[in-house]
Amino acid sequence: MRATVMYGAGDVRVENVPDAGLVDPTDAVIRVTHACICGSDLWPFASMAPSEEGQSMGHEAIGVVDAVGTEIRTIKPGQVVIMPFAFSDGTCEFCHDGLQTECVHAGFFGNNGMNGAQAEALRIPYADGTLYPLDVGDDMAMMPSLLTLSDVLGTGHHAAVHAHVGPGKIAAVIGDGAVGLCGVVAAKRLGAEQIIILGRHADRTDLAQQFGASDVVAERGEAAVERVKELTGGLGAHSVLECVGLAASMDTAIRIARPGGAIGRVGVPQDADMPGSQAAFFANLTIGGGPAPARAYIDELLPDILEGEIEPGRVFDRIVDLDGVPGGYQAMADREALKVMVRP
Amino acid sequence: MRATVMYGAGDVRVENVPDAGLVDPTDAVIRVTHACICGSDLWPFASMAPSEEGQSMGHEAIGVVDAVGTEIRTIKPGQVVIMPFAFSDGTCEFCHDGLQTECVHAGFFGNNGMNGAQAEALRIPYADGTLYPLDVGDDMAMMPSLLTLSDVLGTGHHAAVHAHVGPGKIAAVIGDGAVGLCGVVAAKRLGAEQIIILGRHADRTDLAQQFGASDVVAERGEAAVERVKELTGGLGAHSVLECVGLAASMDTAIRIARPGGAIGRVGVPQDADMPGSQAAFFANLTIGGGPAPARAYIDELLPDILEGEIEPGRVFDRIVDLDGVPGGYQAMADREALKVMVRP
Repeated sequence: MRATVMYGAGDVRVENVPDAGLVDPTDAVIRVTHACICGSDLWPFASMAPSEEGQSMGHEAIGVVDAVGTEIRTIKPGQVVIMPFAFSDGTCEFCHDGLQTECVHAGFFGNNGMNGAQAEALRIPYADGTLYPLDVGDDMAMMPSLLTLSDVLGTGHHAAVHAHVGPGKIAAVIGDGAVGLCGVVAAKRLGAEQIIILGRHADRTDLAQQFGASDVVAERGEAAVERVKELTGGLGAHSVLECVGLAASMDTAIRIARPGGAIGRVGVPQDADMPGSQAAFFANLTIGGGPAPARAYIDELLPDILEGEIEPGRVFDRIVDLDGVPGGYQAMADREALKVMVRP
Repeated sequence: MRATVMYGAGDVRVENVPDAGLVDPTDAVIRVTHACICGSDLWPFASMAPSEEGQSMGHEAIGVVDAVGTEIRTIKPGQVVIMPFAFSDGTCEFCHDGLQTECVHAGFFGNNGMNGAQAEALRIPYADGTLYPLDVGDDMAMMPSLLTLSDVLGTGHHAAVHAHVGPGKIAAVIGDGAVGLCGVVAAKRLGAEQIIILGRHADRTDLAQQFGASDVVAERGEAAVERVKELTGGLGAHSVLECVGLAASMDTAIRIARPGGAIGRVGVPQDADMPGSQAAFFANLTIGGGPAPARAYIDELLPDILEGEIEPGRVFDRIVDLDGVPGGYQAMADREALKVMVRP
């Protein structure tokens, strides 16, 4: 079968690899119908050290179940399923608490040696706990939005939840990538009264406004902080969604948060230390977030997609086949594409 | 009148100063009957640059109202009052939300030029919003516990609240100073099932156990992390109360927290950056806290003191008059005294 393998920064190849197969009795194999390239894939695309073995890439997918192991109880061949970006056993206390990304058996697809979803097929560990069966027929128009449930919408929602977004709150979203835009969708959905998007790409902030953002702040650093303060009566935002992961964006998040406010961070931190420890302390800020339990959030988010209340699939602005994946990485790295869907 | 003034590291003097008086119509003046020396006073005692003007010290007090300004509506001369460590106007949106330490007019006594409570008397700005009248007669036995409502108990409670302590939770308290010990009181009060105190002073951890701690971890660093993991089924604590403020203690807090857990931090951070940003992210930790709204918490905590349910005043192990204040600083700095009460 064919799959995407990254061998180092800028070096993404689509290759013939051994067919995906069952290994453990709790496995399934899915045939990938829809996958995507994630903003987090751009970090290794920019910096990965050369590797002889390479890393199989991709962690977001919708697929059709092809085979299941002998201990699988709920997942059945032929089902259309969402594959969240992390696998989870579905039985540990973290899974029971809806925090599947902290499952005692958790792992991340397309990462640390695990097979990825930018491929014709892949093996799914703990398939009963991991996969989410869909009953949506073949409504292809809905597939892009359903695909965001595998990661990017759940991640934006996780940011909004940890930023304590709610009715009457002012939310600020840092980052106009697909996660930031889904953060806008989530903040709107949770009732934010005012949503400020901080981003510099007009086409993306335009989409953010269509998703419900009320204000766009294109400035950066100190000027961005001042602008947000102007837009919030001088006090800052109750809820800040940090969807980038750089020290500079975290610093901005802390400085635009209102005293007593909350920051939900979902951008993978690129630095060991966090800036603004004292500033956050004296402002009584709460900082939370991490890898989103996308699996847990599907129950809550799926109905709004099925009912047409939200359309997060609009973040996809390019579709490629497997051969187009390397070009898709480059287009996203060059900010020519917002988010690339892969149809293997 | 006489008051405590710090002129630099290790240089605390008790001096004659101008009498405290009303300045603004929203002021009151209180005669201090009980004050204390705070662990946070030890930071400048260790490091303050020499100053010609000096800083009037002390931010925790019970006193008797001596005079009130023309706009004071609720506070009356002769009342016994708790003076929380921050003053607050009582009318802004932060005060209404119970976050008086973020009041738009907030300030801290004995700090940044403000007069302090290790004195015969002091001026109280926004006295209606700041002072909490007591109706406790002259039960002197209860005064030490009531005095903790001005800061140290409210601060321990703030840590417990932000650490999401609750029934069935495992709490770990970092620091065996008076705040950490009050953190144990608060965690017990909020229903924690297991309370682990991390500290190295046997007399203090003994008191922690009397307050409800179930386990003592005297190790530090990596050994402390391993010991807490052993005590928590390998997973760590749901709730970590960080009551120190050093980078090392924050690092320990992050490493002993269970995935999805919460850290309430009330130790004033001594470093601009926070360690463990990536570790906290991948464990989906929530980190909150800051200067505690002690004023807000009195309503909740006072009844338990009056009913004898908690006795946080046991953290005081030395009483001095004003002349004894410099020696009190030294005794706390030398860890010979846990917390010093001042009777001016």
